[in-house]
Amino acid sequence: MMSLAKDTVIGFIGSGVMGKSMAANLMEAGFPLNVYTRTKTKADELLEAGAVWKESAADLAAESDVIITIVGYPSDVEEVYFGDNGILAHARSGSFVIDMTTSKPKLAERISKEASKKGIEAMDAPVSGGDIGAKNGTLAIMAGGSETAFHELRPIFDVMGSNIVHQGPAGSGQHTKMSNQIAIASNMIGVCEAITYAEKAGLDPDRVLSSISTGAAGSWSLSNLAPRMIAGDYDPGFYVKHFIKDMKIALESAQEMELLTPGLELSLSLYQRLAESGGEDYGTHALFKMFRA
Amino acid sequence: MMSLAKDTVIGFIGSGVMGKSMAANLMEAGFPLNVYTRTKTKADELLEAGAVWKESAADLAAESDVIITIVGYPSDVEEVYFGDNGILAHARSGSFVIDMTTSKPKLAERISKEASKKGIEAMDAPVSGGDIGAKNGTLAIMAGGSETAFHELRPIFDVMGSNIVHQGPAGSGQHTKMSNQIAIASNMIGVCEAITYAEKAGLDPDRVLSSISTGAAGSWSLSNLAPRMIAGDYDPGFYVKHFIKDMKIALESAQEMELLTPGLELSLSLYQRLAESGGEDYGTHALFKMFRA
Repeated sequence: MMSLAKDTVIGFIGSGVMGKSMAANLMEAGFPLNVYTRTKTKADELLEAGAVWKESAADLAAESDVIITIVGYPSDVEEVYFGDNGILAHARSGSFVIDMTTSKPKLAERISKEASKKGIEAMDAPVSGGDIGAKNGTLAIMAGGSETAFHELRPIFDVMGSNIVHQGPAGSGQHTKMSNQIAIASNMIGVCEAITYAEKAGLDPDRVLSSISTGAAGSWSLSNLAPRMIAGDYDPGFYVKHFIKDMKIALESAQEMELLTPGLELSLSLYQRLAESGGEDYGTHALFKMFRA
Repeated sequence: MMSLAKDTVIGFIGSGVMGKSMAANLMEAGFPLNVYTRTKTKADELLEAGAVWKESAADLAAESDVIITIVGYPSDVEEVYFGDNGILAHARSGSFVIDMTTSKPKLAERISKEASKKGIEAMDAPVSGGDIGAKNGTLAIMAGGSETAFHELRPIFDVMGSNIVHQGPAGSGQHTKMSNQIAIASNMIGVCEAITYAEKAGLDPDRVLSSISTGAAGSWSLSNLAPRMIAGDYDPGFYVKHFIKDMKIALESAQEMELLTPGLELSLSLYQRLAESGGEDYGTHALFKMFRA
């Protein structure tokens, strides 16, 4: 197994808002970076900063020591790992793959299993902390995979995040992210109802926040998203359509475990109604529109 | 209108966990204190510390400048204010009444209206912050009533709380507290589901908390109650039966305003099931039992 030196070549697939910042931080930390993404123009900034363009996931995989993916949906993850031109068919034995997409725990387990057949170590390492956390290298990184792989890749995680926890074997990172999204899902309902109640009761909702956001009702969403609800500013932040994706994965996974999740189900149904009424590209706090109306 | 000097006599009704600490802090700050409570033994500590026992709410009201109540249910509030031996029939013109019970906004408006007919100024000022906040004088106090009454009574509030906000006219304090409880109601579901998910997925739930409690899923309940859920420690804290009372008031009030509150309804129904199965004297985090089972 290679040792993780500064000349470790990282291959990065996915140049969304998050991926772009994460890749830029890795380059800034001194890692040589290969880049591939479906829409090449999205990689322009990284290429200008010195990243090397690869024509396919296959090429990138063949020429990188550590391959990081952060793409859109589980179907994208499947394609980029298992397709004919995909990572697992072309990555070298002894290399590492890290999927940082929020994706299915079962899929993470499958990638890990198939990877290990080829002498490749796989980790799932979804993140939270949004565009700002990605830019500042302060993401929470929830890692699943072997202890040794986690230890080996730690310097790479350290560049991208500040709260980095190894949660257990393959799939554990994704399961942890699902737990995170499940906690958010119901709380968003509570925040929306609390603010709508305050408004309808004729109170000044900002003043109400000054009473309730520091005590037992306090939450990140109440402090950070409620003021934007009140202001009617629904820009993302985190997209409604992506949160719906995450909640669907969480619900599927919960159902496989025969778990009772009425709050998650309620939240998903409200978000789906919001998306159907044209809100899928709003930020998640636009759920407020379903209550304020 | 009297000026609020240190010889302002405070009458205190209600010696529950919260009331006892709040009254003790007022005495310690130098206010002469009259006390009445249905069960006299509950006032023993206060009497030993120098409080003066009154045989009825009527006696207490007649001999106090500022009358503070923090009792159990709205029916108790009604009785102590409107009964024949109640406060409003016996308090002096020019005195103040403050109901700090979490109670119905409409009832607060009614007390204010009836009080003003007798030259009495009423405020509703429910609190949050629990037994520890009451003991340390760091409660959040959500005040409704006139600006002048709030200003006049501020020195008294300052003894009991640290986050003291005048929310608006009579009833506004109760409405703010309802907004607070509504935010908590749905979030409790999310916290329970997130921790159950983590456990069922085979993760170490405490380790999951270290990943998720500082980011977008973070909340007071996740940081303070989830560890007690995981440990199976269901001691109150805040009683299930009292939270059910609060949610019922909130739901009634929301329905009067024709407000959509599916999260609150879901939470109330889950807590009612918990209470029916014998959990009404547990702490609110015992909702976890409904999911873990």
